[in-house]
Amino acid sequence: MLCGGNVDTTKSPNARLHPVPLTAVRMTSGFWSGRMAVSVSRSIPRFLSGLEEHGAIDNFRRLTGRKSVERRGELFSDSDIYKWIEAAAIASQSGGATDFAGLIEAVVGEIVAVQEPSGYLNTYYVGNRRSLRFQEMHRSHELYCLGHMLQAGIACFRAFGAAALLEAGIRFADYLVRDFGPTKQPLLTGCPELEMALVELFRVTGERRYIELAGYLLSGVERERLGLTKEQIRYMFSGVPFTSRTEFEGHAVRALYAACGATDYWLETGDTAYGATLERLWRDLTSSKMYITGGVGSRAEDEAFGEAYELPNRTAYCESCAAIANVMWNWRMLLATGEARFADIMERALYNNVNAGMSLDGTLYCYRNPLQLAGWETPVRNPWYQTTCCPPNLQRTFVSLPGYLYSTSADELWVHFYHGSRLDVRLESRERLELEQKTDYPNGGRVELILRPEKPLEFALYLRIPAWSRDAHVSVNDGLIEAEPGTYLRIGRVWRPGDSITLDLNVEPRLTEANPRVRENHGKVAVEAGPIVYCMEQVDHPDGPIFDTTLSVAEPEPVCFDRAIGPESLGGMPVFSHRGLVIAHPLDAEGLYRPWGDFSRIGLKDTRVKLIPYFAYANRGHAAMQIWIRMTRNDSM
Amino acid sequence: MLCGGNVDTTKSPNARLHPVPLTAVRMTSGFWSGRMAVSVSRSIPRFLSGLEEHGAIDNFRRLTGRKSVERRGELFSDSDIYKWIEAAAIASQSGGATDFAGLIEAVVGEIVAVQEPSGYLNTYYVGNRRSLRFQEMHRSHELYCLGHMLQAGIACFRAFGAAALLEAGIRFADYLVRDFGPTKQPLLTGCPELEMALVELFRVTGERRYIELAGYLLSGVERERLGLTKEQIRYMFSGVPFTSRTEFEGHAVRALYAACGATDYWLETGDTAYGATLERLWRDLTSSKMYITGGVGSRAEDEAFGEAYELPNRTAYCESCAAIANVMWNWRMLLATGEARFADIMERALYNNVNAGMSLDGTLYCYRNPLQLAGWETPVRNPWYQTTCCPPNLQRTFVSLPGYLYSTSADELWVHFYHGSRLDVRLESRERLELEQKTDYPNGGRVELILRPEKPLEFALYLRIPAWSRDAHVSVNDGLIEAEPGTYLRIGRVWRPGDSITLDLNVEPRLTEANPRVRENHGKVAVEAGPIVYCMEQVDHPDGPIFDTTLSVAEPEPVCFDRAIGPESLGGMPVFSHRGLVIAHPLDAEGLYRPWGDFSRIGLKDTRVKLIPYFAYANRGHAAMQIWIRMTRNDSM
Repeated sequence: MLCGGNVDTTKSPNARLHPVPLTAVRMTSGFWSGRMAVSVSRSIPRFLSGLEEHGAIDNFRRLTGRKSVERRGELFSDSDIYKWIEAAAIASQSGGATDFAGLIEAVVGEIVAVQEPSGYLNTYYVGNRRSLRFQEMHRSHELYCLGHMLQAGIACFRAFGAAALLEAGIRFADYLVRDFGPTKQPLLTGCPELEMALVELFRVTGERRYIELAGYLLSGVERERLGLTKEQIRYMFSGVPFTSRTEFEGHAVRALYAACGATDYWLETGDTAYGATLERLWRDLTSSKMYITGGVGSRAEDEAFGEAYELPNRTAYCESCAAIANVMWNWRMLLATGEARFADIMERALYNNVNAGMSLDGTLYCYRNPLQLAGWETPVRNPWYQTTCCPPNLQRTFVSLPGYLYSTSADELWVHFYHGSRLDVRLESRERLELEQKTDYPNGGRVELILRPEKPLEFALYLRIPAWSRDAHVSVNDGLIEAEPGTYLRIGRVWRPGDSITLDLNVEPRLTEANPRVRENHGKVAVEAGPIVYCMEQVDHPDGPIFDTTLSVAEPEPVCFDRAIGPESLGGMPVFSHRGLVIAHPLDAEGLYRPWGDFSRIGLKDTRVKLIPYFAYANRGHAAMQIWIRMTRNDSM
Repeated sequence: MLCGGNVDTTKSPNARLHPVPLTAVRMTSGFWSGRMAVSVSRSIPRFLSGLEEHGAIDNFRRLTGRKSVERRGELFSDSDIYKWIEAAAIASQSGGATDFAGLIEAVVGEIVAVQEPSGYLNTYYVGNRRSLRFQEMHRSHELYCLGHMLQAGIACFRAFGAAALLEAGIRFADYLVRDFGPTKQPLLTGCPELEMALVELFRVTGERRYIELAGYLLSGVERERLGLTKEQIRYMFSGVPFTSRTEFEGHAVRALYAACGATDYWLETGDTAYGATLERLWRDLTSSKMYITGGVGSRAEDEAFGEAYELPNRTAYCESCAAIANVMWNWRMLLATGEARFADIMERALYNNVNAGMSLDGTLYCYRNPLQLAGWETPVRNPWYQTTCCPPNLQRTFVSLPGYLYSTSADELWVHFYHGSRLDVRLESRERLELEQKTDYPNGGRVELILRPEKPLEFALYLRIPAWSRDAHVSVNDGLIEAEPGTYLRIGRVWRPGDSITLDLNVEPRLTEANPRVRENHGKVAVEAGPIVYCMEQVDHPDGPIFDTTLSVAEPEPVCFDRAIGPESLGGMPVFSHRGLVIAHPLDAEGLYRPWGDFSRIGLKDTRVKLIPYFAYANRGHAAMQIWIRMTRNDSM
């Protein structure tokens, strides 16, 4: 059975790293195990019911005459089914005993029955709308749906060897190859996604025509033939050469999916123009357009990136899909380069924005993930959305996680993320290695790796030292090694059965501040512990509004947090508290504007600032919440 | 000629104050004279051209067959013409030598020719849409247009004795009186406005049926017959009894126009339930929902009020019309009560938000008036809007200003606002009084009033001492009197020709802070001088981004501003500067998130914080701007 992990760079000429098969990794216990379990036991099955209830699968049945109903849902609703199939197929490999093969086969049967002889397959551009096929590609999502269909087909093929959906996708892709191109009809991904699917299809089939089609889409040469406007090109993040881009703009998910496809293309071609553009875009993103949660997309309008440093908290859009796309893109960049900075971004986005996207019980989803709630907004967590792209995207991400922990390259094993797990893999030397990882990271900072090669084996083990860590300690069989945060520590030696590595990371809470260019965070700090971003919720603060509360630090005393294990309703995660001050006076009677100094004289009283993991916010009802907290130094506001 | 000023409470039983005729006041020179002159010479004539260019008047001509064109513009575009007529009619009284009578007569001719025999008059609900008349009153603006038609008709009648438009309005109003009511067809002001127009129509005609119709509209009894939703009632601020309202919510202009109508109704009926509701709403507005500029409406979505203390700066909506409505409502509350707090709000809104709404040269208008610009937004100042309600509303407000300066009541003369002017009026005793006001307020703080009664005359003069003033001094013929800010100083005596009053107000810059509940303004101050709110614009700050700049105060030294006269491009107003600090280091290379303390170590350098009047912002191009400025105390951020 083919098992390419999340992106199969096994044969990619420009890949520094190669994934291990998803089935080579078994999560034992720890942080993500609960999230994976709830995804498999509850989220994935329920979402299939939701697709039925909202007519998404009936949209296929009506075309085969099995149901006589009107089409329902958005024009891209087919993609929701494909993403569910992909999630369910991956879960069948990574999710323990659960096997969704039967359910998937039934759904795939409904889908492939609709395919036209040409290969075209889409439930929206039928009947009266048939004449609009490929005529409104800036909005049509036809190619976006095909991209997800291909990814779902590849996942089914890798999980079960089931080829029906993949073959249907290939027929559609071959239709595009035949009829579209610079000298044929123009093609455009109005919502980029197909690019990365085509590269993966090339990896599965070895057929160069698919990567050539991806290259054509990324080349952005059809601007004139399609009469695209500047605004469309900006919004779609397609329509001009990808390599002409200098910054992220427009629709955040589209832009990051385009970057994923471009990185896949770079991995296969080594085209340095792509590498240079991707590096520039990465700097732009991480130095001026990314939230501390790993979320991206500052504006609800157009679900778009903002300007540099435009990172408002309450109105942050931070679509779950955008954070997932951020993980997907950084994974590809990591595979290309082996540089720890990409894994750092993945970890930030996964533990915080992505993880926040699904409620702890696996029944509610966030489309947006703001960094502050006033409390009076419509609830952020909902069981369903009319545009329901995020829930299946979250599901497929959670069940894919084992595939992100480890990579290989020639004579090398890479450990990217820390989680209780067993790896049973053949290194690229074809030697077999078992590795056991014991940790309750990120609740605790100790990670133990026990290596069990079949026989003494010389290779280098690369251990990621997170950029956020202070005083990290590594020892190999009790011999200490120096470790530099933000890098992979290379440990090259002959490894013998029973050799062990211990990594000690400091996961005590720490204070973080934002670049002063981020105007909203002036005078504020965020609390982080390990990879987890914390927040204040109103429910924990009976003394007064959280926005009237400051974290109080008496310099030069060190910041001093109390630690406790939070309630079950917060997943039993560590929670922290710190001395704070809260305005003692009811402010409502004080007027709106007063001479400077008047309000400062209003008395403060001691309180405790209580911090819970951001990803767990709004699991106890929708209420005021903030990540960035005002700070008081030496009791002066 | 009838001259009722802005709201004719001459015979209103519940009015503490009565307006003086507009023609009794002549502005000599000063702050508003330039704004009035540019309104008359440029804004009003140009706006008529705009109405022609955008087809608003052709919408009438097409119905009489004079033009064969499609209807253009929004469904409420008729109201833009009416507001222009009202502005032009008032300007013909207050604007010096200019007389728009001829132009108005021509436009009125086009309008009245369209009236149907029933009295109905509207250019949108015709032809195919005729069957929708009064069927979609939550959105139709039919009654809103009638309200503005009546106000325009009354203004023409008062200015020229020209009755054609007023009579047309009366015919439409009589149609409503005849066919609508609790026992007839249901009526609703989906956009309240007609209420105040009907009360004014009652004042002009003495016909009680109009005030009864206003009372019926305010009674909000048609919720069930019209099947109104909770959301509609919230948004429209109508549909339930006005007296059941406890806070401002929904569309800001609608809510404040409803409050205007309710106050007019209270003025005529003395119904205490209205008085209590209005007082409660006023407290709600001024203690938690009003910007320092007098602007209201925090949200672009629904052009709506936000929650209490939801007063974001950059995304503030602050529609020009809403600030005007705030002035209109507080004027009515002032006439009802004679309490200075209402005049304080009027002054704040007029000098700042309203004044900002039109460019200094009278050619560009703001629809929104945010308190901060990042610099990259689409320009706020534009010559025309598809929904172009604000420009003629601004015009009619500017040319009405003389009518707001003074009021009378039995044996009393009230001076509300300070501006170079001559008043020539008969007091309610029928004795004639000339009063000369000499001042360059608010550039200077000295106001001289010279009274010239025909003969010695006993009456009380009420002099407004603005709430913002510190150490105000009043002297009458050189005898000092104590003055309390935020009140009217009553000076009762026998006034002889040549008696004079001198008022000295401190218009030096002062720092203001916001209630800490306004989260956006934490750690920030605003600079005000007299009634003027100041702001920083990027164009004046070459040392670095204004958002990287702080106003630096070394306690306990007093705040120390330099004063200068600004450039002509700012209308020659006083401008101020103060010591500040700006980040000396290029922040772009510093990353987004760092351990607490890292960014604080970035060096600061001295700079000057330069302040210009907020109303003059974006007159030198669209760029970053802020009213609320971060403060540094003793050089520590």
